[in-house]
This record gives sequence, C-alpha cells and structure tokens, in this order.
Amino acid sequence: MGDYASSGVDEEREQAAFSGVMRPWLEKTRVARGGVRVLAGIGSGHFASVIDVGGAAAIAITTDGVGTKIEIARLVGRFEGIGVDVVANNVNDLICVGADPVAMVDYIAWDAVDEEVLGELARGMFLGADAAGVAVVGGEIAQVASMLASRRAGEPVVFDLVGTAIGVQAGPLVDGSAVVAGDVVVGLRSSGLHSNGYSLARRALGEEGVRAHADALLEPTRIYVGAARALWAAGVAVHGMVHISGGGLLNLLRLAAPVGYVLDRLPVPPPVFDAVAAAGGVPAAEMYATFNMGIGLCVVLPESAVDAAVDAMGEGDVIGSVVIGPDRRVEIPAAGLVGRGDTFS
Amino acid sequence: MGDYASSGVDEEREQAAFSGVMRPWLEKTRVARGGVRVLAGIGSGHFASVIDVGGAAAIAITTDGVGTKIEIARLVGRFEGIGVDVVANNVNDLICVGADPVAMVDYIAWDAVDEEVLGELARGMFLGADAAGVAVVGGEIAQVASMLASRRAGEPVVFDLVGTAIGVQAGPLVDGSAVVAGDVVVGLRSSGLHSNGYSLARRALGEEGVRAHADALLEPTRIYVGAARALWAAGVAVHGMVHISGGGLLNLLRLAAPVGYVLDRLPVPPPVFDAVAAAGGVPAAEMYATFNMGIGLCVVLPESAVDAAVDAMGEGDVIGSVVIGPDRRVEIPAAGLVGRGDTFS
Repeated sequence: MGDYASSGVDEEREQAAFSGVMRPWLEKTRVARGGVRVLAGIGSGHFASVIDVGGAAAIAITTDGVGTKIEIARLVGRFEGIGVDVVANNVNDLICVGADPVAMVDYIAWDAVDEEVLGELARGMFLGADAAGVAVVGGEIAQVASMLASRRAGEPVVFDLVGTAIGVQAGPLVDGSAVVAGDVVVGLRSSGLHSNGYSLARRALGEEGVRAHADALLEPTRIYVGAARALWAAGVAVHGMVHISGGGLLNLLRLAAPVGYVLDRLPVPPPVFDAVAAAGGVPAAEMYATFNMGIGLCVVLPESAVDAAVDAMGEGDVIGSVVIGPDRRVEIPAAGLVGRGDTFS
Repeated sequence: MGDYASSGVDEEREQAAFSGVMRPWLEKTRVARGGVRVLAGIGSGHFASVIDVGGAAAIAITTDGVGTKIEIARLVGRFEGIGVDVVANNVNDLICVGADPVAMVDYIAWDAVDEEVLGELARGMFLGADAAGVAVVGGEIAQVASMLASRRAGEPVVFDLVGTAIGVQAGPLVDGSAVVAGDVVVGLRSSGLHSNGYSLARRALGEEGVRAHADALLEPTRIYVGAARALWAAGVAVHGMVHISGGGLLNLLRLAAPVGYVLDRLPVPPPVFDAVAAAGGVPAAEMYATFNMGIGLCVVLPESAVDAAVDAMGEGDVIGSVVIGPDRRVEIPAAGLVGRGDTFS
C-alpha cells in the first residue's frame, strides 16, 4: 500500500516503455516545410515543445488530460472544476518554457451524451480559459462507449477529458540551462492536489474518505499564467520555471542545469495531504514524489531578483536554493528526503 | 439495425448538446495577448481552427482521435495502422483550411503499460508523420485503468489514442466561401473506411464479419498532405477542400458557400462498404451519411483548373459539380439520395 504502482499506475515501466519503443520512432519524425525548425521536441524533457515556424515568435505546444480526478468528480457529481483543470494543466506547462498561452482545443471521450455534465465542463473550461487569457478554439467529442468503463444505472457518464494548448514565446526558450548554484527557488502555493496523484489518493482514502475530503480534492488547479505574465512584463530574470505536477517537487530536475536543489523553507503542506498520507499509510518519500505538497509553481532566479519577482507576482516565498552539482538531486531536509530521478529515498 | 444511433453513437443529440450547452461558454473565451486574433474558432464549422499569432503566417490547429477503429485493431492484434490514422485524421483536416501541417502531439490513455502495442503505435505514427512531413514533438501517456473498459485475460490493453496537429497557413484561410455554382468537385480515392463509422461497421458485421474483413477495415487512412502541397506549389485556384470523415460526403456542406453539390460521377464504392451494408442491412442513406464510400478528399475548384490540379496531384477524378443554391444539399443521383444537414433521405 502507498506505492503508486500498486494503485495501478506504473510510472517507471511506462517511462521505460516510452524511452525504449516510442521515443526512437518519434525522434525520427521531421518537418517537411522549409523554414520550420523544432527547438524543443520529443524527449527534450521540457514542459512543452517549441517550434520555430518562421514567424516573429516561436510556437509552444503541450497536451495533458485530467486523469482519474474525473473519478472523484463522478463520485460526487460535480464537474465544473474538472473543466478548469484541463485548461490549467496545459497553460501552466506552457509558461514554464517561456510561452504566453493563446489558445487551446479539448477532447472528450464519453460513453453517452450528457448535457448536464457537458455544460458543467464547458463552464469550467470557460472559467479556466478566462483566467488564463486563452481562447478555446476547437475540440472533439467522441462517443466510444465500448472503450470506456461500464457504469451502474444512475451513475454519471464515464468520460475522459484532454486538452492541447499552444502559446507564443514571450522571449527565448526557457529550459533551465541558465540556472546556477546560488540561485533561489520561489514557490507559489497550490490550491490542493491540482490534477496529479489521484489514483493514489483514491486508493489511500477509500470511497468514504474521498467523500469526506471531496471539496479539497475537487478544488480546481490554480492557473499561474498571470504570475508568469507579470514576471515577463517586469523584465525579471527568470532562470527556470517549473510546474509542479506528476512527480511533485522532483519536477525541478526537469530544468536543464546540472545542479541540486535544497528546499529548506517549504511551507507546511495543507491538511488534505496529511489526510491522504494518514489514511493510506503512504510514506513521505511516496507523497513527495507524487503530490505537489502545497507548491504548484517554482520560479528559479538570482537572489537579487526575488523582491522584483514577488512584487510583480503579488505572492511567492523563497522555499530553497540551488546548490552545486553535478549530483542532480532535490533535498527536503525537514522530511529527511533526498530525491534523484523519479524517486525520493 | 443500421441506424448509427442504435450503434451507441447519437450524433444528433451530441451536436445539439454541444450547440446548446458547450459552444456558448467556449465562444466567450478570448485571447489576452495583444496582436493575437482568432480567425476561425469554436463553432466556425471549419475543419481546423486558425489563429493569427502576429507572425508572418497564421497557425491552424485541430484535434481528433481514431475512435472505435481501435476495437478492430484489438480484436486482431494489429496496431501499426492506428498510429498512421491518428496522424492522418488531423493533417487531413489541417490542409482543408489551407494550412501546411508541421507538428503534432499525441495522447494515449490506457489501462496498463504494453511495450508491444506502444511500439506498433509509435511505428505507425512515424510512418504517418513521415508521409505528412510533420514532426511529432510531444505527447502524454495516461494510465487510467478505472476509466477504461475492463478486459479478459489475454486480450490486448484497452486504450484511446488522440492527436492534435498544428500547421502554418500556406495562404489565406480557405473556408469554401469562394465556391460558386459551375465549379467542379475533384475526388481523391480513400483507402477504405479511414477512421469513421466503426461503431456502425462493427455492429453491422459482427465479430466474425470483422475478422473476415480485418485487412480492409484496418487499412490506414490515406494522407492527402502531398496532394495539397502539390496544389499550393502549382498555384492551383482551390475554392474549397473537404476531408471526407464522419458525415461522409455531407461534409461538403461544411464549405461556407450557400450552394448545392451534385455528385453524378462517383466511382463504385470498394467492396468493404458493400459488405457492411449487406451484413447489417444498412440503408444507403445511412451508409452515405456515415462512410466516405470511396472518396477521402474533395477539392472544389473552377472547371478550368481541373487539368492543372490533376496534373499536380497525380490523381483525382471529377465526381460532380456545384449547383446554384440557396438550398444547401448534396445529391447522389445514382443512389437516389438527397442530403441536407447531417442526413440523406
């Protein structure tokens, strides 16, 4: 128990499968059109892919769904927040490469038409798009009942919800290669679990626990586009930006620089994380490698830029600092954890 | 029997739900970034959405999955073609608005990691991307077993496969408003059912019939990007381009011009369509409103441009002509059908 693989999600095997049999094929794909160049593509490890289309600014693109948070929404019959999430998950990734989100498309697979659920999802997508300043320009709805889980009478429709967002680079590609030892990590609070780790959370809490914590569990993912735009407008020297999603604070290691991170000033995680850990006996190493633990976005920048950054964003706290590599690790002293790759120990 | 709604796919109710409760919310979404303008967005009815991002050329975006064709692939255990399809479905839509496809991302939802299936899908995506001249720049794999259909031991993984592609406008937005009575429709052959109508095909054929026709049913969707690029390079005056997907030849009515189409020179549909119709007792009206019936792409252009178009593409036959509106209809005299909206009668 408490192991994410035992929740039916085997991240490690999936990563190995992707690297072994998928990435080699996709890396061979090439753009035929002249003047178009992929700046960050498959396997770059960045939060979004970036393509120089020959225009004034490069285009970034990313895709993400909301995963099994949908199961929580179905259990309590509230879907609006899920609509916000599908926007948030994508725009929060775009800003990390320095792209200003402009538009998105959505994909809904479901087992039957349900006007009420669709209306709630659409209202949520509007709220998310409004907060992010993006237009939802298209989408696809697929009725694929035979491919989806069956349900008992009276249960809401079974569905999946996925988005793809594009942005315009607000400046050069940000990949974290500018990060150096001595930089600091400014953390912005999350609104809860956001959209990651729900298979583990559901298993740990059980149906009763999920119902008891439904409000916290369904809180929509925060949208950090406003913070990013404020940093860009203020000309703050951002060395790296990290959306804390699946993988938790280990996502810092997706920044390109060969450095370590010591997070010695993390805030106390909100109660919902304690509830999951306690109910499921989930060890801290697993919690921190799965959930955001209260921090939804990290901005890595020189210490001299912290005041300007916090002023511009109107929020943010220094949660740690960058230390000399070459050992790429994330230390969380208060939890007694040192993380490398995908795991804390 | 033979009714698409009775196959578990209620297109009409879905369209009404989208128009009633989803589109109104999504139409309110706006791009915050200055200098960015949506040229064709939600509800435009175009094959792709187009956004002026302030660069030299506008960006087009579209998203589509492969639907229940996946069920056929799972039944016979062959997945490569499905990978081609997810590329084809998207790039074939992009060219219809005059966009040159450049990149795509994919999304896979599955119930467990399966290296063999992933490898086949990836190889297919490579083949599709290679044929279309696009780079697959990113993607997402989600393990969401609780949301997907359960399977018996020994059956392949249950999964969904979706793509989103972007393109660079090769010229102005093509929406079919240039189409006029007297224009002709040049049709390019399809390779079979492509990726549409599989819920109906499966129900009509039954498992034995599906196995018997597996090769034809799994034939990958043709990719028409080369044909489009040849037309653009030759400077052919294309008034409208139509990817024949869900909705069959009624897709011609997605062109903006208030005209009718008389398709009096259609080729005989390939045998797989007869097999579906015969096995399921599916009436011609339903067949033609669901399947491409042998034509995968229509190019509408002045009669004087036909020779240049066929020369450039190296294929194509005149299958009909454009007639005076204002009644927006598609007539197929040989089948005794007149279609309006989503239905033939």
